[in-house]
Amino acid sequence: METTSPSPHDALAAQTGALLAAVREGRPLVQMITNYVSMDIAANVLLAAGAAPAMVFAPEESPEFVRRASALVVNTGTLSAAGAQAMEVATTAARAHGVPWVLDPVGAGGTQFRNETIGKLLRHRPAVIRGNASEIMAVARLAGLTQEAGAPRGVDSTHDTSEIEALAQKLARHGLCVVAATGAVDVVTDGHALVRLANGSPLMTKVTALGCALTGYVGAFVGCGGDPFAATVSALAAYAVTGDMAAEQASGPASFRTAFIDALYGLQERDISQRLRLR
Amino acid sequence: METTSPSPHDALAAQTGALLAAVREGRPLVQMITNYVSMDIAANVLLAAGAAPAMVFAPEESPEFVRRASALVVNTGTLSAAGAQAMEVATTAARAHGVPWVLDPVGAGGTQFRNETIGKLLRHRPAVIRGNASEIMAVARLAGLTQEAGAPRGVDSTHDTSEIEALAQKLARHGLCVVAATGAVDVVTDGHALVRLANGSPLMTKVTALGCALTGYVGAFVGCGGDPFAATVSALAAYAVTGDMAAEQASGPASFRTAFIDALYGLQERDISQRLRLR
Amino acid sequence: METTSPSPHDALAAQTGALLAAVREGRPLVQMITNYVSMDIAANVLLAAGAAPAMVFAPEESPEFVRRASALVVNTGTLSAAGAQAMEVATTAARAHGVPWVLDPVGAGGTQFRNETIGKLLRHRPAVIRGNASEIMAVARLAGLTQEAGAPRGVDSTHDTSEIEALAQKLARHGLCVVAATGAVDVVTDGHALVRLANGSPLMTKVTALGCALTGYVGAFVGCGGDPFAATVSALAAYAVTGDMAAEQASGPASFRTAFIDALYGLQERDISQRLRLR
Repeated sequence: METTSPSPHDALAAQTGALLAAVREGRPLVQMITNYVSMDIAANVLLAAGAAPAMVFAPEESPEFVRRASALVVNTGTLSAAGAQAMEVATTAARAHGVPWVLDPVGAGGTQFRNETIGKLLRHRPAVIRGNASEIMAVARLAGLTQEAGAPRGVDSTHDTSEIEALAQKLARHGLCVVAATGAVDVVTDGHALVRLANGSPLMTKVTALGCALTGYVGAFVGCGGDPFAATVSALAAYAVTGDMAAEQASGPASFRTAFIDALYGLQERDISQRLRLR
Repeated sequence: METTSPSPHDALAAQTGALLAAVREGRPLVQMITNYVSMDIAANVLLAAGAAPAMVFAPEESPEFVRRASALVVNTGTLSAAGAQAMEVATTAARAHGVPWVLDPVGAGGTQFRNETIGKLLRHRPAVIRGNASEIMAVARLAGLTQEAGAPRGVDSTHDTSEIEALAQKLARHGLCVVAATGAVDVVTDGHALVRLANGSPLMTKVTALGCALTGYVGAFVGCGGDPFAATVSALAAYAVTGDMAAEQASGPASFRTAFIDALYGLQERDISQRLRLR
Repeated sequence: METTSPSPHDALAAQTGALLAAVREGRPLVQMITNYVSMDIAANVLLAAGAAPAMVFAPEESPEFVRRASALVVNTGTLSAAGAQAMEVATTAARAHGVPWVLDPVGAGGTQFRNETIGKLLRHRPAVIRGNASEIMAVARLAGLTQEAGAPRGVDSTHDTSEIEALAQKLARHGLCVVAATGAVDVVTDGHALVRLANGSPLMTKVTALGCALTGYVGAFVGCGGDPFAATVSALAAYAVTGDMAAEQASGPASFRTAFIDALYGLQERDISQRLRLR
């Protein structure tokens, strides 16, 4: 009899199972400064995961609040001048207190105002950046790493994640952070290792703010205190597998949303190990 | 054998089928400045329809953003001074760039502040005004076309659409726009033609912001570039037929909402032709 | 044959049945200044109950609006400086016009900013205060009635309602108001009488803002014009029984939410009398 090291598939399934349990036991407090469209679904996703969401953004209280948070998540959708100021204050405080924070650069590359706001936020060193391919490209451009414009259409990607793998790695090395570009195939990198996840359903793009809620979910995993790269990969794996499971129950985007949150609530390590598809 | 022109019923069903396909193929980018209550459902309705919603309102970016939008939708629910300013900036830019915009005058006639805000917006010439009967009456009063107060109760109509048909026509001629008053029977007019649609379910009034989401849906149809009157009539016909279909599946307002979005996602021309009821 | 007075159980069921009917017939207009997370579910809960919700907060219009409202509900979640100002203006106007208002002190005890805002609001004399045990403790501390800090974790309670019964009574007597502390067991008191309700499901804590929506529901009952204590007890009883019913249909938090709103829409006095559990 020989001892063999587990396959990447089995190792990721086991790691994800352990993190699912850690979130449920630890109930990480995730402070979110997120767009108005996503508040309901992001909070419900975090509750279903076992985390404790708190939508706190006022500059008058968020520095006081963030100290007790396990993670902070900042999302630039429905941006306003007041919102940009709130994000600046909160991320400054998070960094000062060593609270990891996750950036969802919604609409990056779409307008000058988004770019300026996101450019300033990058200075406060997010632990993870999670966006679609166009947004990741636009953030890389803001960091001076490419001349190509992300140029999303509205808030939708006009690129495939396969087109920006090298750029995502460059961005991760530059920012000393984890970069996750999600799409039909999700790509996660810490600048060195790179993982591709092929689960998920096209219906996920038909439910508003499911991507924003994913960023919150990443925050919950990162908030458990382990390695941010492992946390991000596992969060994305769990989320995409949940998408597969929900699609089997759904007859359209709204029943998919219901099935998705229910499935996330009951998600088990065996669901991951049975369904996970690495590429 | 004689050639006969199609009945109004068949002509509208065919036109609506063509527009359903146009939205799904063209994926019109619909910028919405809408109230906080409606953001989730409006975005989900637009995604289910095949359109690309974007909730962008900051004066710092909306003039830049609206140029690439297929249509702009402005809704005065949860109004604030900042929101009124955002609407002013966005509608000015929309008009300057020839982007059609749709007004949902939520709460018109309810307070002086709503009336002033809506009165200013009317100067920027919406392509379509969609409201309940009391709101349409209040807008007509703001335009100097009647002495009668719309006097909604909160955000609910205190009038029947049948009471305001002539006034809706007057408002449409005055504003050179389409006017749609929705209720148990929907009335749509360009000031000359007038269509009455009798589909829909009372459960539609028990789901918050389903009317606001309808205005977004009208924006998607208008954003496909054809005649705004035809687009508005077809959007209302498709939406009300979807209401009929969802009511057959529902056991209350929440399951109705789920069934409604699922049905909208799968809606076909044959559903319209089988169910459409003109009056 | 002897005449016996009805048991507390039967009396409460009958009273609740009468109030369910009163809300459906009277359609109380409930103005809500509530957090962004809760707007969708709170409005849907109120519509399902038969009430007319209106999310109106702008200082430019809320004093004009509140005069016609049956009740005002103020919730301090997602607090901002502008929101605090809106609450101040609206509660001042409500009191001036004799409109009862209900306070949901979300996050009380969590930050200095929340405490200051809530402290000011208390001066305008809410008819009812509805919160979790930690929040009620924090409000009592703001009123100078205890030295103990509520110290919620994020927006979640760190106390059991059984720990704060005496304090809730003290707060009710001090504020001449009704105090409702909700949790696994709900406690309601007017400072003298105290009722404990044991219905409800743990899934209620897995749906975001279901507590905020409950405060809106209390507003609808209080807005019918009867005794605020009776109205609050009945609203909590109806809501918790609905939770029991929905839990029987649910396979997770999202299907629970759907079943909850559907069940609330169809709720009957017999459901209360069959299921109500007083403690």
